Amino acid sequence: MHRRLGGVLEVESKVRLRTIHDLSVAYTPGVAEPCRKIKENPSLVYLYTIKKNTVAVVTDGSAVLGLGNIGPCAALPVMEGKAIIFKEFAGIDAFPICLNTQDTEEVIKAVKYLAPAFGGINLEDISAPRCFEIESRLREELDIPVIHDDQHGAAIVVFAGLLNALKIVKKELGELKILITGLGAAGVAIFRFLVRAGADPAKILTCDSQGIVYEGREKDMNPIKAEIATLTNPGKLKGGLKEAFPGTDLFIGVSVGGIVTEEMISSMANDAIVMAMANPTPEIMPDAAKRAGARIVATGRSDFPNQLNNCLSFPGVFKGALGTCARKITPEMEMAAAHALANVVSVGELSEDYIIPEPLDKHVVPAVAKAVANASLESCAARRSLEDEL
Amino acid sequence: MHRRLGGVLEVESKVRLRTIHDLSVAYTPGVAEPCRKIKENPSLVYLYTIKKNTVAVVTDGSAVLGLGNIGPCAALPVMEGKAIIFKEFAGIDAFPICLNTQDTEEVIKAVKYLAPAFGGINLEDISAPRCFEIESRLREELDIPVIHDDQHGAAIVVFAGLLNALKIVKKELGELKILITGLGAAGVAIFRFLVRAGADPAKILTCDSQGIVYEGREKDMNPIKAEIATLTNPGKLKGGLKEAFPGTDLFIGVSVGGIVTEEMISSMANDAIVMAMANPTPEIMPDAAKRAGARIVATGRSDFPNQLNNCLSFPGVFKGALGTCARKITPEMEMAAAHALANVVSVGELSEDYIIPEPLDKHVVPAVAKAVANASLESCAARRSLEDEL
Repeated sequence: MHRRLGGVLEVESKVRLRTIHDLSVAYTPGVAEPCRKIKENPSLVYLYTIKKNTVAVVTDGSAVLGLGNIGPCAALPVMEGKAIIFKEFAGIDAFPICLNTQDTEEVIKAVKYLAPAFGGINLEDISAPRCFEIESRLREELDIPVIHDDQHGAAIVVFAGLLNALKIVKKELGELKILITGLGAAGVAIFRFLVRAGADPAKILTCDSQGIVYEGREKDMNPIKAEIATLTNPGKLKGGLKEAFPGTDLFIGVSVGGIVTEEMISSMANDAIVMAMANPTPEIMPDAAKRAGARIVATGRSDFPNQLNNCLSFPGVFKGALGTCARKITPEMEMAAAHALANVVSVGELSEDYIIPEPLDKHVVPAVAKAVANASLESCAARRSLEDEL
Repeated sequence: MHRRLGGVLEVESKVRLRTIHDLSVAYTPGVAEPCRKIKENPSLVYLYTIKKNTVAVVTDGSAVLGLGNIGPCAALPVMEGKAIIFKEFAGIDAFPICLNTQDTEEVIKAVKYLAPAFGGINLEDISAPRCFEIESRLREELDIPVIHDDQHGAAIVVFAGLLNALKIVKKELGELKILITGLGAAGVAIFRFLVRAGADPAKILTCDSQGIVYEGREKDMNPIKAEIATLTNPGKLKGGLKEAFPGTDLFIGVSVGGIVTEEMISSMANDAIVMAMANPTPEIMPDAAKRAGARIVATGRSDFPNQLNNCLSFPGVFKGALGTCARKITPEMEMAAAHALANVVSVGELSEDYIIPEPLDKHVVPAVAKAVANASLESCAARRSLEDEL
């Protein structure tokens, strides 16, 4: 399909240029008028241009899907796919930007330079731990929302699923023993999101390819893992997944397919929740996890129940942010998105096999966008000066 | 209109995402296949993505229309207008990139970084003399066509008009005494184009706001003007327009409205050609120039005959270049564009008031694109390895 179509997106003009008059309104001399107005009052760029509805989907090609560091050109089909999801799901005009540098400082500069025409920046498939520095610096230095979707998109969807799962198993977030495997972009963001939402870091264990993370571990650490080590695992438990699993209420896998055994799942607490999101092969297949005693199982796959798919978050989050000409994405906006997403599944519909809406559920984007827009207004992310004009 | 529409362009998906299957083809996991293919053979990016039909319209907002240095946000409406002309005239998907830096080296880096998703770069409204360095460096360092339209777009259209004008006045390019006023992007590019085409630099005078350029002048020079000074004006004529005009066959104005008098035009040679392109007010109004004895008068305005409008060149030039997946724009491609544009006006139609096609003439883009594509193939700018696959 990608070859037949020559890529999956195109740019369209909203106006026809049939006469010299058309041309003189859309281009010179007519176009000078909006230019002058924006020069006088820079925030009018949100009224007179495409900025208000436009998102840059930016990658450096360093961590693309499961393919790894394939570079900016080979990453382009993924960015196109992301852009058309923005359009089809949320009516947002998103355009792929594939950067020909993987130097952290240069990526930051490039995004800052190209920001003026965009109302938001969606960072995509940038490798950890570089992605943390890149995102946090851009969030500080730009006055438009910046989201590394592999982090926050994943965290919002996982937390929405968890909110609904907890209604079923009747446990409290603060009481949960949690195991997270994989400390790339998604794993770190999920950890942070859970703690912000009220999970007890002392009850959380994290694992990477070297096993359980503990304070003082030396192999394969980075500043983020070191920080996580100080917050979690107060008993300094060492070992691998086998040692980490016993007694946990919630397993979150954003790591590698097939690494979790039925025996490990059997060692979990009662009413265990398993979110095995490695793609395309989950850490453990749903039937095996169920057989081993898990009560609720979610994956990243569309052919099993409870698909935790980022498509459920980013279109609505950006729609809500752009709708208020937001300067940034606040934690409140992300939290509001997760709650709104969870609530698309009504209490009556809720079941072990339905803790999260389907990716194509038409109720998702409006619900998430509305919640994010409200949170944007409440948390002062919105450009209030434009409210009267919009 | 810009406000009512919220900008004049949008991004469209070429595929509908109605089912999970649609989603899995356009995005994960299906999208991994084109990614892998491009990773194996980078030139396949031209087959599997939007690159082949996509142009970045890049500005730093430093020299926007007649408005000057209004910055990247205020320049956005112009870039949108340019993008929709690309689409409406040539079916090309162009997207505005407004850079938040005016540092020459940073602009060069930013464009190099964002180049992978684009098949060509249209630089726009970047101030002289920075635009010369930026364009020439990008032409050297990128493997896609880079055109600063204010330079080459203008030069191609002027030369096309001149080719036809010379058929009427029956003069030879190499014999013409030429005066060019304005040594910004357009003036310098027109000078270079004319010399490349066979004009005799020793018969050319150039003027800027400080008067005639001559070797040894000290005021308001730059390296480009210094080079022009060594090539032109061997008699080291000094003074202003009044001193420069007598005996010239061709006046080309890309400077400031109203600076040329009827007296100056009267001092030109017989069968004088006047191209007064300052916008919106020409250097001299057509009726005044005619009254003073000019045989052929062209301007940049749509309300007079012979409108020399860049819209006549850039859509076709890029269409021809993109159609051959060109690595660069060669002088041969630009020259072919000018000849093809001139030849859209048949010998039978040719007259003093019709030396150049109308901007909306449907024959222009196909003719220019075909000539540019042929020249691309002949001058080895085309990616021949792709020919069989395309």
